[in-house]
Amino acid sequence: MTYMEEIGARAQKASRLMNKLGQRDKNRGLIACAEALVKQQDRLIAANEEDIRRAKESGMKPSLVDRLMITPERIAGMAEGIRQVALLEDPIGEMISMKVRPNGLEIGQKRVPLGVIGIIYESRPNVTADAFALCFKTGNATILRGGKDAIHSNKEIADVIRESLEAGKLPSDSIILVEDTSHETAAEMMRLNRYIDVLIPRGGAGLIHTVLENSTVPAIETGTGNCHIYIDESADINMAVPIIVNAKTQRLGVCNACESLVVHSAAAAEAVPAVCDALSAKGVEIRGDARVQSLDRRIVPASEEDWGKEYLDAIISLKIVDSLDEAIEHINRYNTKHSESIITRDYESALRFQNEIDAAAVYVNASTRFTDGFEFGFGAEIGISTQKLHARGPMGLLALTTTKYVINGHGQVRE
Amino acid sequence: MTYMEEIGARAQKASRLMNKLGQRDKNRGLIACAEALVKQQDRLIAANEEDIRRAKESGMKPSLVDRLMITPERIAGMAEGIRQVALLEDPIGEMISMKVRPNGLEIGQKRVPLGVIGIIYESRPNVTADAFALCFKTGNATILRGGKDAIHSNKEIADVIRESLEAGKLPSDSIILVEDTSHETAAEMMRLNRYIDVLIPRGGAGLIHTVLENSTVPAIETGTGNCHIYIDESADINMAVPIIVNAKTQRLGVCNACESLVVHSAAAAEAVPAVCDALSAKGVEIRGDARVQSLDRRIVPASEEDWGKEYLDAIISLKIVDSLDEAIEHINRYNTKHSESIITRDYESALRFQNEIDAAAVYVNASTRFTDGFEFGFGAEIGISTQKLHARGPMGLLALTTTKYVINGHGQVRE
Repeated sequence: MTYMEEIGARAQKASRLMNKLGQRDKNRGLIACAEALVKQQDRLIAANEEDIRRAKESGMKPSLVDRLMITPERIAGMAEGIRQVALLEDPIGEMISMKVRPNGLEIGQKRVPLGVIGIIYESRPNVTADAFALCFKTGNATILRGGKDAIHSNKEIADVIRESLEAGKLPSDSIILVEDTSHETAAEMMRLNRYIDVLIPRGGAGLIHTVLENSTVPAIETGTGNCHIYIDESADINMAVPIIVNAKTQRLGVCNACESLVVHSAAAAEAVPAVCDALSAKGVEIRGDARVQSLDRRIVPASEEDWGKEYLDAIISLKIVDSLDEAIEHINRYNTKHSESIITRDYESALRFQNEIDAAAVYVNASTRFTDGFEFGFGAEIGISTQKLHARGPMGLLALTTTKYVINGHGQVRE
Repeated sequence: MTYMEEIGARAQKASRLMNKLGQRDKNRGLIACAEALVKQQDRLIAANEEDIRRAKESGMKPSLVDRLMITPERIAGMAEGIRQVALLEDPIGEMISMKVRPNGLEIGQKRVPLGVIGIIYESRPNVTADAFALCFKTGNATILRGGKDAIHSNKEIADVIRESLEAGKLPSDSIILVEDTSHETAAEMMRLNRYIDVLIPRGGAGLIHTVLENSTVPAIETGTGNCHIYIDESADINMAVPIIVNAKTQRLGVCNACESLVVHSAAAAEAVPAVCDALSAKGVEIRGDARVQSLDRRIVPASEEDWGKEYLDAIISLKIVDSLDEAIEHINRYNTKHSESIITRDYESALRFQNEIDAAAVYVNASTRFTDGFEFGFGAEIGISTQKLHARGPMGLLALTTTKYVINGHGQVRE
């Protein structure tokens, strides 16, 4: 057995034990883990200092060093997150439907854990605790493969959780951190179909692309968002401007931030200067084609590449269209199927936009920044799916479950 | 643009038009296609004769030649299948839930088509009509890539359907047959993420393995079934025997046929001879380990390989265990997560088996042969999923849909 196969086999064994645990045991385990993380915060901070020291030595950008940092406040946040998960309703075991067939067979569809969930993620160590809590709550074992930068922090968080589970006589292999952060182990993990049921990548576009390109384990595409806001002919510009400012600038580096504006030509003369005023005041660079540049001198030239770009920065692209059809076609062509919004007063435009735009979340008269498991009221989020299989949009606990048909017979055979 | 990219772009364009069609137009299209297939059966049979001639020349086995054959009866069957699909309830457009958040945002989850579905399949030409009907009913465009053996038949079926759609002013590119059956086009299809939303392989284990191994398009694993029946200590042997005979012999070459028996040692002395009598009478070879061979002379030696084997033939393996735990462990180790059944009179054994066996369908006291979309009452089936993402078990119309969040706002921005 290879290093990864051994981890896979241990996780699978733990998942079978997890499948037998009831809500009470799972919640007791989660609360104990939350308490242990707070109690043992000195251990976590000491391990994190080693990661921080190495990151600084290697010349990591201050903003990334900050993401890597563990502080008492951040540990309290992790613990509070785990406690919140413990309070959520447990979806496991629910019989979604049960019907009796003419031959007397009772066929029920029951919600069950996925089994073993692999998570491949980048620098923020709090993902270790967050992802474990959601998977544990839903009866799954988790194999976590974080980045090299956070390895000491991740290992200490996983160790504290494992010790706490062990003390509570719960399966500690329900969380296994892959300590060997070489590319080989990640590559092997992506092909460990025998032991891993689902793989969820969490991180930048490069990581997600690598997983989709190489994984034979079913994976859920998360994350990248080239989100658009379309200002319709009938838009209330006084409503449009604050929505655009919020969607672009409330947080720059997130997947549900607005990266591109599409403006109906009939609204452009009023909308473009107003939007440029508001965004320029926030230091946002606006890139547009020749047509829109004539409307405002602050607009710099856009290339074809700009329409498909997720900037994650203080930049936005701006495109003028002559009809709703053209807007829908442009957005469906360049978007990443994440979140799109129309600003309109027109009933038909609102419905057509919602029906015809191909994306996980389609808004009327609201900021794209709401695409989030907490904002949607799920109480948790493991990521935002931009694919169409299994889960689409923000993923809460339900996305970490599957179903199983249970059939009760009395000797039935097929004719 | 390559040959496949061009097909992909056409299908995507058609899928956008399909998304706007209502139930009435979709059902009208299906019924017209069913009528056209029957009316133009001479064309279909003539094209099929070419495939049959080539198959015989190349020395194809008579059973496979029979699968390839199109007859007036089989055309009537295809047409009837399409009409049945037209009668099913259309799942598209249903708002599954709609909730209002504290900030006044209305968040709804709506059922929508997947978009473009790619189907890669082997010799039976009726799949062309069946798969099209299910995809069309759910508002999807379909790219069909059948085998070389059936290319003339598949092309003629697709042409008749396309002409019929065209005559009804419906998007004919909602069905596109890949006429170039080289491995290169199949390989390209598996990586056509820009245009294909989901890939469903239908065929033998080799085809499914190739798709899972090479596809970057999200795929649904279908088909292979190493299904077990476990005879518990408390089993009624008079109930067990007919169930086993049905599950093994009612149809040999299907994925929900029973391939392996697991027998509790306390039931073996009574059960094994009775089962051997019944199966031997049907010409089934029984393979077991040394322990079970001592119970009946007709049992031939099994190797380790036998436990994991999907025979699709008149062969079955037989394993003796000393406990329910051992039975569950054995089945979870060797099964393909398809269908498993326990024969028991014991309440706790029944529940534990259903809860702890990891498979799409878990039966008590019934034949595994019921795992089927029609038997489950879905009125249709595109395949049987043995994976845990998106759909598990028999897949009806719902498996060909996804959801989209639609959010109605009044100027909301995120704090």
